Amino acid sequence: MSKNLIIASTSTIYGSGYLEYLLPTLAKHFAECSEIIFIPYARPGGISHDAYTDVALKAFEKIGKRIVGLHTFKDPVSAILDAAGIFTGGGNTFVLVNMLYKTEVMPALRTILHQGTPYLGTSAGSNICGLTMQTTNDMPIAYPPSFKTLGMAPFNINPHYIDPIKGDTHMGETRETRIKEFHAHNDIPVVGLREGSWIQVANKKMVLHGEHTARIFTKGKDPFEIETGSLLSF
Amino acid sequence: MSKNLIIASTSTIYGSGYLEYLLPTLAKHFAECSEIIFIPYARPGGISHDAYTDVALKAFEKIGKRIVGLHTFKDPVSAILDAAGIFTGGGNTFVLVNMLYKTEVMPALRTILHQGTPYLGTSAGSNICGLTMQTTNDMPIAYPPSFKTLGMAPFNINPHYIDPIKGDTHMGETRETRIKEFHAHNDIPVVGLREGSWIQVANKKMVLHGEHTARIFTKGKDPFEIETGSLLSF
Repeated sequence: MSKNLIIASTSTIYGSGYLEYLLPTLAKHFAECSEIIFIPYARPGGISHDAYTDVALKAFEKIGKRIVGLHTFKDPVSAILDAAGIFTGGGNTFVLVNMLYKTEVMPALRTILHQGTPYLGTSAGSNICGLTMQTTNDMPIAYPPSFKTLGMAPFNINPHYIDPIKGDTHMGETRETRIKEFHAHNDIPVVGLREGSWIQVANKKMVLHGEHTARIFTKGKDPFEIETGSLLSF
Repeated sequence: MSKNLIIASTSTIYGSGYLEYLLPTLAKHFAECSEIIFIPYARPGGISHDAYTDVALKAFEKIGKRIVGLHTFKDPVSAILDAAGIFTGGGNTFVLVNMLYKTEVMPALRTILHQGTPYLGTSAGSNICGLTMQTTNDMPIAYPPSFKTLGMAPFNINPHYIDPIKGDTHMGETRETRIKEFHAHNDIPVVGLREGSWIQVANKKMVLHGEHTARIFTKGKDPFEIETGSLLSF
């Protein structure tokens, strides 16, 4: 009974292949799994479940792991409960969460992750590890029955975190302003995770990895940075 | 019985004061109104309804119009039904839509706008003029009972529309990709409205104004640009 998750900001860093920067970490993380179930529900760019699964399959082949799409199972809940390892890819968080509720995979996933099934999330697949999906960057192109997500960490994730750009003339809100607005209505701490960063969750121990610092937002306080290698505690 | 709306991408263009670029247009649009009701529910940056109303008040003073915040009325539904003119400011669209449903202002607003009450929306206040709020750029920091909005035009708005930045190394989705994802799940056309552009709706006639072209997205087709001064028809 020990959580075992990698919560990554992005699948892909600029100038590199899909999951490439994470493969050595994933070889260890999924050492005990020959087959990993891929949850393709977030459909980035609107691609099909099959096409998306193929992208994940090609990356995991490089570390000798078989990938099977969750959409190919008649009973996705049983498939999740029996999985040796699970990977949820990025795309649209609203579409993902809607499907996880519709298929009743959400509670099964929560149960099995608490029992220690190794998990990888990237982007939308990381958003769902937080208490709610309310700090996603995505458009609300589907209406899920709830914004509540897996609660594998006592905070929310903001993936693809990006700093305000000096001299930017665009008047849309910066990411920091958006998270400040979140805290005008909610108490949950938020971890702004830059591309190339990930959080490793080993039961209650949560450690920041990758080459960047992460930005921590808590209600009513100034945001601050934590170094890579640091423990996250709230 | 004739709709009469200004649907603006933003309240503020870079290097200019709040609503400054629109004031000559607003003086004509609200010519018959001495008092305008301001809907401050979207609370940009989490500011209070009072503080936000004060921002709108100071801008409308310059064209001799009185502004009263909707939050100061005991019965906001009656206030909307009796209003001479209405302005909904930007901020967070989820918070705005949630409040419009909670207060039951949404259906009242729909009724009165169909009857010709002059309306101005900026950003989130423009998002709600579309069929749904599903092409907002905002974070889902509140959970509204529905994403359905006023339907004052037969399309959705994407305010603060921004073109992909050449050479950008950030891996988050571009605005165009997000709207393409919307069309993987929805059929509604989307108007990408750049900052400084607005749509004037006079009953069924909808015209693009301001210095920019607008980008039109329809399901299954390549997006295209329309010139300022053009009629929008779908």
